[in-house]
Amino acid sequence: MESTTDPTQPGHPVPTRRTARADNARPVADVIRQTIVDGGFDGGLPSDDTLAREFRVSRNTVRAALALLREEGWIDRAPRLGTTVAQRTVDHRLDSLRGLKETLTGYGEVRNTVRVATVLVPPPVVARKLELAADEPVVYLERLRHLDGETISLDLTYLASDIGVALLKQDLETNDVFPLIERVAGRPLGDADLSLTAAAADAHSAATLDIAAGAPILLLERLTRLDDGRPVDLEYIRMRADRITMRGTVSRTHHESENP
Amino acid sequence: MESTTDPTQPGHPVPTRRTARADNARPVADVIRQTIVDGGFDGGLPSDDTLAREFRVSRNTVRAALALLREEGWIDRAPRLGTTVAQRTVDHRLDSLRGLKETLTGYGEVRNTVRVATVLVPPPVVARKLELAADEPVVYLERLRHLDGETISLDLTYLASDIGVALLKQDLETNDVFPLIERVAGRPLGDADLSLTAAAADAHSAATLDIAAGAPILLLERLTRLDDGRPVDLEYIRMRADRITMRGTVSRTHHESENP
Repeated sequence: MESTTDPTQPGHPVPTRRTARADNARPVADVIRQTIVDGGFDGGLPSDDTLAREFRVSRNTVRAALALLREEGWIDRAPRLGTTVAQRTVDHRLDSLRGLKETLTGYGEVRNTVRVATVLVPPPVVARKLELAADEPVVYLERLRHLDGETISLDLTYLASDIGVALLKQDLETNDVFPLIERVAGRPLGDADLSLTAAAADAHSAATLDIAAGAPILLLERLTRLDDGRPVDLEYIRMRADRITMRGTVSRTHHESENP
Repeated sequence: MESTTDPTQPGHPVPTRRTARADNARPVADVIRQTIVDGGFDGGLPSDDTLAREFRVSRNTVRAALALLREEGWIDRAPRLGTTVAQRTVDHRLDSLRGLKETLTGYGEVRNTVRVATVLVPPPVVARKLELAADEPVVYLERLRHLDGETISLDLTYLASDIGVALLKQDLETNDVFPLIERVAGRPLGDADLSLTAAAADAHSAATLDIAAGAPILLLERLTRLDDGRPVDLEYIRMRADRITMRGTVSRTHHESENP
């Protein structure tokens, strides 16, 4: 993948020639990282020589790519033992509205440590999103969520109080809130608005999630409505990026192409 | 939001009482950060006193929350001038398949610096995802993408060669590849598989994206198919998390509830 600019390309500025080894290592690291995320390299990674041949790069470029992935925590490297996968992620589907336990079915047991379960008056922004009057109380939950005993996310949840107060009587340690909401509301959930970004975990959140300060996390805001359109559940979720991959399929449908 | 455990909650272990100021500051920071991402606080943030009143927390808790947000780069604080928004993001829709220029319509002008545009034989994993024979060449692009002159993402793209070679003759600096693919293929795109995670930018990628080493980025793998199901475009995209928010709406439809 040491690339040369295509001499057949007419009529456009010659692309900037990359020269740094890091530029050559990046695509190698990206493909190997994604292969790990996809569940590959079960018996360990191929040798540096094999990777160099497969990627058509130098061994030094392979080593630079693997150094990056080791720094990111994806692989271990040891003389004689070779290169092994240090870390796997689980898939969180983006294309249907599911709670963590629902989406991680088959991966292991999800359990929640309920850090806070209380009634409070939320800030005005939260009240507006939940379409509540100012000073109307909500139920506020903080849950640290575990998959097979390992911390994977920290969820802050604001619930409309009629539903939230009923939820406080339910088992919040082994259930997602979604099916509980549907049970106490007596109707299904409809849809949710997602806002997703990446962040470096602050020291205290990192300690709570059992990761290093500054480690990458996914930060999700999710506003969930009942099927009658009423917003009932507003969550702020920190997910460990070393444990969770968001997956979805998106369609070109409904797109107004600029070039019909 | 200094919360007390709800004494009305029967039959469940008493939640762990949070005591750290960071635990109280986190939900305040989350709501303020999201308000900024949503486009709020146009004229600056309210005073610490006002925020303390709105969030029903102490001024010290407000200050701890704002210290976090300043560290993350979202706000500036100055005596007398108060607290102002330092950074805004643009929305990248997750619910339909769009190129960056298509999704950022209305935000400004997207331009691409083409760093590499070449023909190469991809590694076996890439060939498999594109359903190509081993040793079949692809077109490989590296584009640094800018919104109104500011770097926002670095995209590594593998294209099936029949389409890719035709794309090399198109204007890659001002166009997304999606409409170009549709033009040269003579048919619309169908759908794409997304795999999205967060990462801390390595030093060289960070320098390329004009952010600090270790700054949070969104890492997206996207495999895009024509409407006949043929995969033609595999991309590895690094997006600056301080500039791009992923947005979508998901529906509960098709979900098999555990609690019918």
